[in-house]
Amino acid sequence: MNPLSSPLLTDLYQLTMLQGYFDAGMTGEAVFELFVRKLPPKRNFLVAAGLETALTFIENLRFAEEELAWVEKSGLFRAGFADSLAHLRFTGDVHALPEGTVFFANEPVVRVTAPLPEAQLLESRVLNLIHYQTLVASKAARTVVAANGRALIDFGLRRAHAGEAGLLAARASYIAGFAGTATACAGPLLEIPVFGTMAHSFVQAHDDESQAFADFARSFPGNAVLLIDTYDTLAGARKVAALAPKLAAEGIRIRGVRLDSGDLDALSRGVRAILDAAGLREAIVFASGNLDEYRVAELVAAGAPISSFGIGTSLVTSSDVPYLDAVYKLQEYDGRARRKRSTGKATWPGRKQVYRRFKGDGTLAGDTVSLAEDPKPGEPLLVPVMRGGRRVGPRGTLTEARERSASELARLPERLRSLDDAAEPYCVDIAPSLVALAAEVDAAETGAPA
Amino acid sequence: MNPLSSPLLTDLYQLTMLQGYFDAGMTGEAVFELFVRKLPPKRNFLVAAGLETALTFIENLRFAEEELAWVEKSGLFRAGFADSLAHLRFTGDVHALPEGTVFFANEPVVRVTAPLPEAQLLESRVLNLIHYQTLVASKAARTVVAANGRALIDFGLRRAHAGEAGLLAARASYIAGFAGTATACAGPLLEIPVFGTMAHSFVQAHDDESQAFADFARSFPGNAVLLIDTYDTLAGARKVAALAPKLAAEGIRIRGVRLDSGDLDALSRGVRAILDAAGLREAIVFASGNLDEYRVAELVAAGAPISSFGIGTSLVTSSDVPYLDAVYKLQEYDGRARRKRSTGKATWPGRKQVYRRFKGDGTLAGDTVSLAEDPKPGEPLLVPVMRGGRRVGPRGTLTEARERSASELARLPERLRSLDDAAEPYCVDIAPSLVALAAEVDAAETGAPA
Repeated sequence: MNPLSSPLLTDLYQLTMLQGYFDAGMTGEAVFELFVRKLPPKRNFLVAAGLETALTFIENLRFAEEELAWVEKSGLFRAGFADSLAHLRFTGDVHALPEGTVFFANEPVVRVTAPLPEAQLLESRVLNLIHYQTLVASKAARTVVAANGRALIDFGLRRAHAGEAGLLAARASYIAGFAGTATACAGPLLEIPVFGTMAHSFVQAHDDESQAFADFARSFPGNAVLLIDTYDTLAGARKVAALAPKLAAEGIRIRGVRLDSGDLDALSRGVRAILDAAGLREAIVFASGNLDEYRVAELVAAGAPISSFGIGTSLVTSSDVPYLDAVYKLQEYDGRARRKRSTGKATWPGRKQVYRRFKGDGTLAGDTVSLAEDPKPGEPLLVPVMRGGRRVGPRGTLTEARERSASELARLPERLRSLDDAAEPYCVDIAPSLVALAAEVDAAETGAPA
Repeated sequence: MNPLSSPLLTDLYQLTMLQGYFDAGMTGEAVFELFVRKLPPKRNFLVAAGLETALTFIENLRFAEEELAWVEKSGLFRAGFADSLAHLRFTGDVHALPEGTVFFANEPVVRVTAPLPEAQLLESRVLNLIHYQTLVASKAARTVVAANGRALIDFGLRRAHAGEAGLLAARASYIAGFAGTATACAGPLLEIPVFGTMAHSFVQAHDDESQAFADFARSFPGNAVLLIDTYDTLAGARKVAALAPKLAAEGIRIRGVRLDSGDLDALSRGVRAILDAAGLREAIVFASGNLDEYRVAELVAAGAPISSFGIGTSLVTSSDVPYLDAVYKLQEYDGRARRKRSTGKATWPGRKQVYRRFKGDGTLAGDTVSLAEDPKPGEPLLVPVMRGGRRVGPRGTLTEARERSASELARLPERLRSLDDAAEPYCVDIAPSLVALAAEVDAAETGAPA
């Protein structure tokens, strides 16, 4: 059983509810929406990511024999329930924000319309995939803004929360504008550019640092980025400068150097000067080591001569905000709008659409969340991506998502590009029809006017 | 290509370094150690987890044809490199802390002794697996201490950082003492108890809350935990109380209720009173909803009548501390100790062992990190788990790890059980032989006394 594609990678209660729905004959049409209830601190916007991986999960959703066997022998379900699961496929519709779309609180990212058991069963894994990739794309977008054109590489695999997060962090950060990743399998699996040269262990394993540099440059002629901070960064740069003519005589050029510790602003200047004095003006200075968008912004503002940054842990764990308040909620069942009213967790009922308005220069001007049947001025953001269980049109590519994200980031109001909380948040209106529907649902449920 | 078992789920630089090592004939014996450089705030101890999953990865490590094909056609490596990879297997030794062992900063969790390319190649994935599971086990252990005997269930899948984290969070929290998880596939894949009943959508999909409760209780006679906070928690409890006699007449008992929002202390008392008054003294009150170890400790201290807690996002993302400063460093190569001296990132060289001393009552008294060849008083914590690429003895079971963790938590000095920073951290001595070796290595590398 591959956990990543298994329908059992779900919360058990999805399965118990499915039995309940089958027992009660509740297989009418349900509408669920995935959205973020509230933007966390220091997130002035979010970037949607993960849709294509979620759609792949949805279209392949089925219970294999070993999974059905577990359901049967678990003792948790009634006899015959596994047979109902055996035939279950997703036959519904999905509307969604295309990957790379900027969005805000209370705006549906995905809307699922399907027979109740099918729509219910998607919850855990679809949230799991879209929450994480949106979290990372949103963090990455902040770093892209901070880097102001310098290249960023995802370095986070080792501290990512297990393996799939490592791979999907590469995917989400690439959507948001990273140049690529150090995670090798993102090359063959996702066609994302992969980068990487050497770690400290390579230098340490050699008895002599210069020898390590020479060995590596000869193994990767023209492509070696030498890690120079294992013992003393400036001394390392001088060794590179001394080595360069010898390698040049062999026809080998050094591509650049990497700094991974210490005062990166001061060291990058010192290293740049040493390289320039040795005629290595084209050698790049790459920086890494506990970087996040704030450190990148500082280094860029200071004018540190760094051409590329490797960003690891802060990116893949979204360390300052390691989760979003993302939920997947029933909004309509059997033709009736539904609403959860739990304290602090109330939701807007009904099937919704987001309408976005733009200023004359293309800048985002404001959104309205309305009922799908009550259009408002602006561009509708949710588009059909699956109908009757099959994708609508060709699957979205990473390149399209990346271009969309770049275009959206370029059209963000300037105040939202701040790494801190915007002086004024982006305006998301709730349409009067939606407010009225919420009151109507409340009244119907309580038997009293809302 | 399954990313979770692929040797390409690694940083590209591991592969470029391997080519460099092969080119330079550097296949001598290397010793790498995985450790945490510094405990983060509010972590007075850590609980080792992930070893068995890492060993499974190590013993199955090999490049399949499609992976070799990518290496060849990527254009990143010299011709023939893929052939070297085709034959690569792990043939070395591994020493490690058994899962469930409590440990501290600078103490090796895993020590790998193998030909340099093999040991190097393990870095990214072994760190990825052990870092995350240790992170979650350590967070879970704090919650177990806070719960003081009440049952805890992992509810985190949807907000875990993608799929493998969801599954491994169930594993790590079970090691640390959780009673089980809501993640269904942890049942068939890991034999962890799974729990789960209903979500708000089940209630919302019904036109009437009482009907939802009745339907569910009939589908799961004797086993239904009814979620009562969708609209109004106390009203929900009264509906359960009213329903109970009707169900009892059908021979159906309600197992309990769940609260997922609001003031859980006050509501649990109100609900308990309603249930008791209805003769439902055996019905349990289960609580969930943005809980972490601090909230659990408060509710337990207040005497809230809650028998079990569901812990989600805070657990699986270790939200207050979403990563550890975990690293995997070369400590020895070809018989010579090695040391990284990068600013703020210096390491202790050589192959090491941890010796733990105990007080008369079994409480942990202090550790010494020493060279493996320089034993100190106390129990050596690292044990051989793999020799010549094969496991030593039977694989460790989750039950063993769970029992070990419980025993270790019971023997923690009281001050370390605080959820805040201990008044006095646990004492980890660095043996004089290790300090001397570090000075010796520095002197050899710089050509000057350290």
